[in-house]
Amino acid sequence: MSGLVSLVGAGPGDPELLTRRALDRLARADLVLYDALTPTELLELAPRARRFYVGKRAGRHSIEQDGIHRLMIRAARRGQRVVRLKCGDPFVLGRGGEEVLALEAAGIAYEVVPGVSSAIAAPALAGIPVTHRGIAAGFAVLSGHVIGDAFDAIAPGALTLVVLMGLRTRGELAARLCTRGWPADTPAAIVLGASHAAEARWFGTLGALAEAEIDDQPGVIVIGEVVRLGKQRVQTALAEVL
Amino acid sequence: MSGLVSLVGAGPGDPELLTRRALDRLARADLVLYDALTPTELLELAPRARRFYVGKRAGRHSIEQDGIHRLMIRAARRGQRVVRLKCGDPFVLGRGGEEVLALEAAGIAYEVVPGVSSAIAAPALAGIPVTHRGIAAGFAVLSGHVIGDAFDAIAPGALTLVVLMGLRTRGELAARLCTRGWPADTPAAIVLGASHAAEARWFGTLGALAEAEIDDQPGVIVIGEVVRLGKQRVQTALAEVL
Repeated sequence: MSGLVSLVGAGPGDPELLTRRALDRLARADLVLYDALTPTELLELAPRARRFYVGKRAGRHSIEQDGIHRLMIRAARRGQRVVRLKCGDPFVLGRGGEEVLALEAAGIAYEVVPGVSSAIAAPALAGIPVTHRGIAAGFAVLSGHVIGDAFDAIAPGALTLVVLMGLRTRGELAARLCTRGWPADTPAAIVLGASHAAEARWFGTLGALAEAEIDDQPGVIVIGEVVRLGKQRVQTALAEVL
Repeated sequence: MSGLVSLVGAGPGDPELLTRRALDRLARADLVLYDALTPTELLELAPRARRFYVGKRAGRHSIEQDGIHRLMIRAARRGQRVVRLKCGDPFVLGRGGEEVLALEAAGIAYEVVPGVSSAIAAPALAGIPVTHRGIAAGFAVLSGHVIGDAFDAIAPGALTLVVLMGLRTRGELAARLCTRGWPADTPAAIVLGASHAAEARWFGTLGALAEAEIDDQPGVIVIGEVVRLGKQRVQTALAEVL
């Protein structure tokens, strides 16, 4: 009797953006370990499972990372099917790599089920393509949890910059990029609750990012010329309504 | 009677990595426009639809981009449900942004259905997390179709670099990065046919990328220290078999 741990990407929140494999693993799970911001509708797709909240938010940890590892390993050793449900994709700033190393060290069978990353889907759902011919030949994804050296690593304007977990630090982020030569009038957007019911968008510039009036909730920041495409789209849609 | 165009991300190839919404749109489609490398199993999920190949491969265009726009618009004007099926995610180097602009200009109703991007899923399925605490705080995704200025924009080693459509140009890519100061011994990997039956992996270094002996097929290149995590995993697995 040996269990299995599935590290499952939950996508940006809308249950319709789960993959078939994610659905299957949830349906058959004995135990689901889930993060902050996981919509209830997703958890209801695991009717057989005990569900255990292991989220962390902005430094306040409800449970240490080691504790998550121990929970997964213990359940798998009892022969259970465990789903470690992670927002977006498990390997995009989600500590999935650490969980895989812990499972390997313990000799537990595991699999990774990639998901739709919010880094790409949140801009897309706000009408912003992260790449666009003639505007952005690529994009970079960074964590805004700590504004570290990685923010100095990208030449101003060369790529679309997508920042996850950066709302709290957005003033510092904008200041650092401007110091490194990013023009203050670089278009910027904040996408809140992408694919959730409470979806909202802010369009502005890098220089105005710190002053953006938004609710205190998680969101994705997009910086670069591609933001113009999304902004234009919103204005066209408004013009049609008015 | 008005149609709808759905720009649908097909994910990396495995039908199990399609989203629920993608499955729904395929099931109800009247017309599917698909690219090169789209697995037959995915097309079979659209039993009602006419299926039309509009792929391009390494410069040989079977149909011009404008032609794709005209096909979508004409079918939608006839009231059809059109799925524009794109490998990975529609907005990651897939010209989805241009298709959206064409649909908007023509006044056609459309939606974007984000998909699992190969840029993240292909490394993941080879055991490589694109981000990892203490190793890579972020990642960048670039097209290798043309080795342009974007490759000079990232400081050596600061982020994981993922290159799509770069197998043909990998010698030029490696030379350019080394000239810009990336160490030749930076770990590098090539993931071929991720999530397809013909999955294969090459592990080496940036300096050895040009000489990697691989079949001429599409693949994803990953460059950075996170590659060590995947390589180690493969070696451990082999050691267990031997």
